[in-house]
Amino acid sequence: MAEPFIYRRIVDFAETDMAGIAHFSNYFRWMEAAESALLREVGVPLTASDGVTDYGWPRVRASCSYHEPVRYSDELEVQLHLKTIKVKALEYVAKFYVGQGDERRHVATGKMTSVYVCKPTAGGPMQSLALTPAMLERLAPLAEEVLT
Amino acid sequence: MAEPFIYRRIVDFAETDMAGIAHFSNYFRWMEAAESALLREVGVPLTASDGVTDYGWPRVRASCSYHEPVRYSDELEVQLHLKTIKVKALEYVAKFYVGQGDERRHVATGKMTSVYVCKPTAGGPMQSLALTPAMLERLAPLAEEVLT
Amino acid sequence: MAEPFIYRRIVDFAETDMAGIAHFSNYFRWMEAAESALLREVGVPLTASDGVTDYGWPRVRASCSYHEPVRYSDELEVQLHLKTIKVKALEYVAKFYVGQGDERRHVATGKMTSVYVCKPTAGGPMQSLALTPAMLERLAPLAEEVLT
Amino acid sequence: MAEPFIYRRIVDFAETDMAGIAHFSNYFRWMEAAESALLREVGVPLTASDGVTDYGWPRVRASCSYHEPVRYSDELEVQLHLKTIKVKALEYVAKFYVGQGDERRHVATGKMTSVYVCKPTAGGPMQSLALTPAMLERLAPLAEEVLT
Repeated sequence: MAEPFIYRRIVDFAETDMAGIAHFSNYFRWMEAAESALLREVGVPLTASDGVTDYGWPRVRASCSYHEPVRYSDELEVQLHLKTIKVKALEYVAKFYVGQGDERRHVATGKMTSVYVCKPTAGGPMQSLALTPAMLERLAPLAEEVLT
Repeated sequence: MAEPFIYRRIVDFAETDMAGIAHFSNYFRWMEAAESALLREVGVPLTASDGVTDYGWPRVRASCSYHEPVRYSDELEVQLHLKTIKVKALEYVAKFYVGQGDERRHVATGKMTSVYVCKPTAGGPMQSLALTPAMLERLAPLAEEVLT
Repeated sequence: MAEPFIYRRIVDFAETDMAGIAHFSNYFRWMEAAESALLREVGVPLTASDGVTDYGWPRVRASCSYHEPVRYSDELEVQLHLKTIKVKALEYVAKFYVGQGDERRHVATGKMTSVYVCKPTAGGPMQSLALTPAMLERLAPLAEEVLT
Repeated sequence: MAEPFIYRRIVDFAETDMAGIAHFSNYFRWMEAAESALLREVGVPLTASDGVTDYGWPRVRASCSYHEPVRYSDELEVQLHLKTIKVKALEYVAKFYVGQGDERRHVATGKMTSVYVCKPTAGGPMQSLALTPAMLERLAPLAEEVLT
């Protein structure tokens, strides 16, 4: 089974809410930041344009289950699993952890499906697109399953 | 079947991303803003404190499926359905629409489960709590199902 | 003296922080939302593209003084003054109020300068641009000063 | 003259807007994240509570001048200067840089004044407070000026 990609960040004060914990919408931003870091590492751009066509990875589905709160200044670790490579999409599972050693806790679990799309740079509708061979080659070693 | 609660807002420029569409994390904030408006209307506070104990509604699960993009300045309508009242939790389904008349499109569908909790004002762990009779009385007319 | 443009919104739960008040970065988003509403009302687009060139209004300066905190669920009123129309820029002053009647309080004052720019749709550097005669005609009645 | 405190982060996709650049409100969040990191390093908490009284550092003024846009994935460096320690407040100047070597550019300059305050944990108005001797001792070596 493929190793997860590890992404770390410190929880910002601006990410908390008046309940004293990180707002639940931030986990989706953190999942995306982890995806960005993964794609950057393997050399697949999250966004690209040749001036005629723009390419990107919009989300078609995202979910998160919250087990325990995360707080200001927590050192957050996101373990991002590339579960499945589909013809036109990537399916991720993100496990969120905080704390070190005995204090380490699995605080949330997210899922996200990103679809590869293009659209005219000058404007117009998005269209889904098959991943390129270069993308497949770079992403397959990280994936648990390749359905293409 | 109970009528959904209607919440409207205009998509802000700050809510867009470089793909030219509203960022997917915002739908969770919009779902929560719709929940806030619903609770405000029926007189159930989203957050309360008597100086000894704080009460709130953290999310334990949230998800969204994105059908079509939403753009800057779109007039967004959230139809919030209170699907189920449980002993300690509320389950919502949110349907997102943009456009008027023939242009009207169902652009996304979200789900969210909020749990009623308390914690000591002076700090300490959160604990889930049964909804009060007053809450049940105010929320039941909006719910499709009451499992208490 | 020109009347300010009035923009209202309810403070979201997601806009609060663990200090129990709205995070100070939100006032800049609110100022921009008020600017968007003003420009929409007079028919000057905040963003436009003809497929070859993109037009926009990036900020070159923004500031805010915070007099009193703003809280979840507060009904916020932004009084946006278009202070000065310059050849290539608009200078705004925003006064933030919450509360009604005797409870009404002036909680913050912001300033913002937006510059009119264009850039190639296919990518490339931004360049500042003189406001068009149509823009001047639409904006001048709202401005306290026109320096063009 | 005291050395600035260095804080680095990568610009997130979620921090961009439809103009293709980082939204101007994020610089205020980045300035605060740099302040958090500085205070963490010297051992002054950004937020604290003894269960009776809460302590914090709300902003009373913040401003930013934007020289050049910042983009998705840019490696941002914030040079945070603690300009002045006042009896009850800290004044910062933040210089934002992106790029390495010959490509390095000074993209923005921000200012921020944070006031030391307390309020009853059980709720009530905030009150400004003199910095403690322990805070002064920890912060003075970083400050360009101490006016206490």
